Parts: sequence; C-alpha cells; structure tokens
Amino acid sequence: MELNRYIEHTLLKQDATKAELIVLLDDAKTYNFLGVCVNPCNVKFAKQYLQNSNIKVVTVIGFPLGQTTCEAKVLETIDAVKNGADEIDMVLNCSKLKDGDYDYIADEILSVKTACQGKILKVILETDLLTKEEIKTACELCIKGKADFVKTSTGFVKNGVGAKPEDVKLMYETVSDKGLGVKASGGIRDKETALKMIEAGATRLGTSSGVKICS
Amino acid sequence: MELNRYIEHTLLKQDATKAELIVLLDDAKTYNFLGVCVNPCNVKFAKQYLQNSNIKVVTVIGFPLGQTTCEAKVLETIDAVKNGADEIDMVLNCSKLKDGDYDYIADEILSVKTACQGKILKVILETDLLTKEEIKTACELCIKGKADFVKTSTGFVKNGVGAKPEDVKLMYETVSDKGLGVKASGGIRDKETALKMIEAGATRLGTSSGVKICS
Repeated sequence: MELNRYIEHTLLKQDATKAELIVLLDDAKTYNFLGVCVNPCNVKFAKQYLQNSNIKVVTVIGFPLGQTTCEAKVLETIDAVKNGADEIDMVLNCSKLKDGDYDYIADEILSVKTACQGKILKVILETDLLTKEEIKTACELCIKGKADFVKTSTGFVKNGVGAKPEDVKLMYETVSDKGLGVKASGGIRDKETALKMIEAGATRLGTSSGVKICS
Repeated sequence: MELNRYIEHTLLKQDATKAELIVLLDDAKTYNFLGVCVNPCNVKFAKQYLQNSNIKVVTVIGFPLGQTTCEAKVLETIDAVKNGADEIDMVLNCSKLKDGDYDYIADEILSVKTACQGKILKVILETDLLTKEEIKTACELCIKGKADFVKTSTGFVKNGVGAKPEDVKLMYETVSDKGLGVKASGGIRDKETALKMIEAGATRLGTSSGVKICS
C-alpha cells in the first residue's frame, strides 16, 4: 500500500511561520504526498512552490467553526480557486444541523460546490460535536449537496478526539455507494492509527504527522 | 459604574442552537448590555430581533484563526455589514506577524476598515500566541491600519488563557493616545476579573458570562 498517496500533509495552525510552511511543502515533495492542506492565505504561495509536482493544494473554507454565512463561504471558495486551490474543505454549519435546518445545509453545500468550478469539495462534519444520528444525517445532506467527500474533523475542537474509526465506518457506509469518499482527519499521529482509518473506509488522511507515518 | 455598558454579550461556539441564541439576545435586552457578539450566520437574525433596542450587533471576521486572505476578509466584512452588523471584530493574521510581514498586516486592516463603511473595527491580536514585543507591534499596526479598537483574544486557543490584565495594560498604553479603545475578551467569567480588565484600561469586555457578572 502506498500510504503516502492517502495523505494530505496538513499545516493549519494560525501562528505557523513561512519557514514552517516551506518545510511542509518540501516534505510533501520528498514523500510524494497526495496533497498539502494549508490555510487560504498560503494557497497562492503553496501552489507556486509546488508548480512542478503533482501534489494537490487543498485549503479550508469557513474554518474551523463553519459559522460564516453561505455567501461568505461561496466568496471565499471563489477566491481560493482563483489563488490555485485544487480542492476545497468546507466546514458544515453545525448549529444549523442541531436546529434541524437541513435545507439550509444542503443548499449551502451545493452553493459552495458550484463555486468550486469543478474542483473537489469535501465537507467537514466535526464529528466530535455530533451524535451518530447527526453524523448520518450530515452525510446524507452532503450527498444531496453534491459534495465529493465527507471529512471527520477540523482538529480545532477543544478537548476533541478528532477522527474515530467507528465514525469513519459510519460515514463510509452512508456515502460510499453514492460515490463519495471519506477523509479522516484530526488526531492521526502514527501509522497504526492511519491504517485503522483506511480499514474503516477512509480514502484520504488529513494529518500533520505524514512524515512520521511514512518513515 | 454601569458595568453592563462595557459588555458585549458573546456566543460564538459553533454548535450553539437558535434557542441558545435567543436566550443571549433576551439577556442582552434584560441587562441592557452594550452589544452582542455573534457569528456571521446569526447577524441578520440578531439584528432583526434587537431592532427596537440600542444594543449593538457585533460579529467576527476571519474568525478564529485569522488565516483567510485579505480579499476574503474584505468580502466577509461587506457581507456582514449588509446583514446589519454594527461592529466588526477581525482577527489579525498571526503568521504574517511572526514573519515580520508588517505592511501586509497594516494593509489588510486598512482594507477591512474601508469595507466597514464607517462601522467600528476591532482587531483581535490573540495575545496568548504573542510576546509582549509582538503585542506592541501589533497595536502599532492597528493604529496604522486605522482600527478603532484592539482586542485581546478569540477565546478559541487550545490551552489559552485569554485576556490578561498586563496585556490589556500594554495595549492601552500603546494605543490610547491615538484614540483607539481596548476590548478585553476570553476568560472573563466573573465581576472581579471584569473590574481588573477595566482598571487595566479596557473600555469593552467580550464575555459569555455577562449575566453572572451583572447579577
């Protein structure tokens, strides 16, 4: 198994320096990771730096709270695609899910998917904050909104666990026959955990420990 | 001292329900707080709900990481003002500060201030992640960018403390003679702490414990 081709090598902390970003991008080249996941303000630089590689530049929208407006998520997505983003990981509006405002969520996902202009869209559910039933409902709304992937976590929930194999399995069982993939992210810090996620159905891994996992 | 007139009653957690939002807005009316601070997706509702009051609707931009692009922050601000926001609390780009990219930061603040169309702009420094020297530099950039307030914290840093009296004092000493105010936020959960912040120079308090503080 080419574990490196599952990995989106990730750096999203808000105080990361340019030097740290360059280390991430160099590591992505060295290990031939599938992609890098960086904050929107770093997309243009990352895209230029990786221009002679096949490494995808992934970025995050409405991150990490998912509480911006639909309009803002759309505008942010258009801006990210313009700057060179190959894939878009948007955060689902959790409070609207709790309120049962399902049309809002499906419409929002569909609006962002349109703004992606053909680029891959992943939707982050933030499973730490959801019941199993809510995870299943969120997955169904992602299908309705024509997302390409469902993703477990932002990695930014206080006292959050991040990806759990049982959540990945539930997500896989809900979306796989509709053609969506599952990205496990948050708390994947070693090879053993990475393999557990893949066994549970993950087709992508978001992690800042890509080098450790593949060494 | 009318402590309630310092308080921006705050609800920013991503899984807060509509019912929780309404409690916040009702409390703001009951206690006549200066304002409420809510996520962008709740601005329109909050503004309508508070239409016959003088309570300000404050929202957050590029929140909580501050790592969206300048373009996205501007578009998000225009959207928020259109939805009825009276004040804008934007997050400073911390990684650019660490990199010494000061022109970027001052230009970004100025761009967002322009997008505010005369509304008050506060800039969140996220003091938990900064040295004293960086806090001072950030304040000077806020002056240069024509912000109206400097603000300590988002309340979303893992293991973060939030507002500290000594940081508030430093911020006050750096900006007050230029006419900027200081908003202390993060970790203000009782009256004693609130009074310490005011003593240190805070002219606004962001807290979700407004009711407890004023009861």
